[in-house]
Amino acid sequence: MKPSLNTCPSPALLHLFDVSNSIVVIIDVLRATSTIATALHNGAKEIIPVDNVSDCIHIGKELGCITAGERDGKVAEGLQYGNSPFEYSKEFIANKTMVLTTTNGTKLLHMAHSKGAKEIITGSFPNISAVCKYLIQKNTNVILGCAAWKDKVNIEDTLFAGAIVNRIKQHFLLECDFSQMAESLYLTAKEDLFNFMKERNATHYHRLTNFGLEKDIRYCLTNDTAPSLPFYSNGKLVNKLL
Amino acid sequence: MKPSLNTCPSPALLHLFDVSNSIVVIIDVLRATSTIATALHNGAKEIIPVDNVSDCIHIGKELGCITAGERDGKVAEGLQYGNSPFEYSKEFIANKTMVLTTTNGTKLLHMAHSKGAKEIITGSFPNISAVCKYLIQKNTNVILGCAAWKDKVNIEDTLFAGAIVNRIKQHFLLECDFSQMAESLYLTAKEDLFNFMKERNATHYHRLTNFGLEKDIRYCLTNDTAPSLPFYSNGKLVNKLL
Repeated sequence: MKPSLNTCPSPALLHLFDVSNSIVVIIDVLRATSTIATALHNGAKEIIPVDNVSDCIHIGKELGCITAGERDGKVAEGLQYGNSPFEYSKEFIANKTMVLTTTNGTKLLHMAHSKGAKEIITGSFPNISAVCKYLIQKNTNVILGCAAWKDKVNIEDTLFAGAIVNRIKQHFLLECDFSQMAESLYLTAKEDLFNFMKERNATHYHRLTNFGLEKDIRYCLTNDTAPSLPFYSNGKLVNKLL
Repeated sequence: MKPSLNTCPSPALLHLFDVSNSIVVIIDVLRATSTIATALHNGAKEIIPVDNVSDCIHIGKELGCITAGERDGKVAEGLQYGNSPFEYSKEFIANKTMVLTTTNGTKLLHMAHSKGAKEIITGSFPNISAVCKYLIQKNTNVILGCAAWKDKVNIEDTLFAGAIVNRIKQHFLLECDFSQMAESLYLTAKEDLFNFMKERNATHYHRLTNFGLEKDIRYCLTNDTAPSLPFYSNGKLVNKLL
């Protein structure tokens, strides 16, 4: 019997899925999980995801490490760095610890943890092949968890979930309609994900391009530029491929 | 300024939308809202949607009217009729009152009502043109509310929301990603909705075909066979086109 594969469209629907029996893949394509994959691929020692800016500042002081996070597209007051993958080059981030706060991805990660997820990893186009390889190897139930935007379903996280479904579905039993819908959407969009985002008027696309972040979006929609496997353990994300 | 158009994928996400300022379209394609459109088109006087079987029995006795509803694909114990549009021919239903309980559609309707929706109508492929015409005429904010399946997002309600978006979008401001996703899914599926449901392995498709209800599904995916406009007022659905 194959393990099950489900896709949760929004943190507000996570209670509908059996988290305790599954690997949960946290998906926050623009830009949290893309940045996490990039920083870990570039040698970050560990990333501590926290819910709010004050915890981020507090832990940053305590550990003497890098603090990062944005609110409304700008580096949050009191933090040192932002949420762009381009800030975390090898030269800058190798062997460093980073405390990161984001709006949606961190929230979902902590929800999955508090509901007793068997394992938690994070996924994004920059590390899609590493994620798929891991999920196939583990041969365990999987929940693709879209971080969404303030609980509203979004296009980019759904597209990534659909890309995963498309790659690994023959190894799993697809249980929910939303996995099917996500794959169909991905197949429609895959020739040019960036243009699909633009044409479909994605709310987040506009939010970010208004801040001049088109380059970030293009990067976050590109496969396998940062082949790490961010694995959550003891409150920290570490690269399981190391 | 155009009014807004949003699509709510599941009752569990309804709190994210400004219901009080909008017409809410209740969508439960398989089969509640298709059956409602059909019964009203065939001359039913009114339909009283209720949450549970015991209320249905109680009101049925009190008013001496038809009781209808299914649980797990069978006529619920104590009720007279089921949930199939084919049960409600003109000969049978004209001028009659019917109390109806369904699993998902009724729940969403009552949620929208208790949150103070400006207006509530129900939509389905059999009355799609009547619904679109009404929404364009009213020129007010719209929320397309998918009844889903026990809060899990489903394909058929999303396809219908997408069909509505596709027909009326030039008159509205599309605010949420899910409206875009629904339209994209609809455009992929529209040449053969039935086959799309089958290929995409929709959970509800299998649930119903296991009960021998393929004919019902085909009917519920066909446009404009029952051009009524079910409008919720004083606890009852009536045909506003009469």
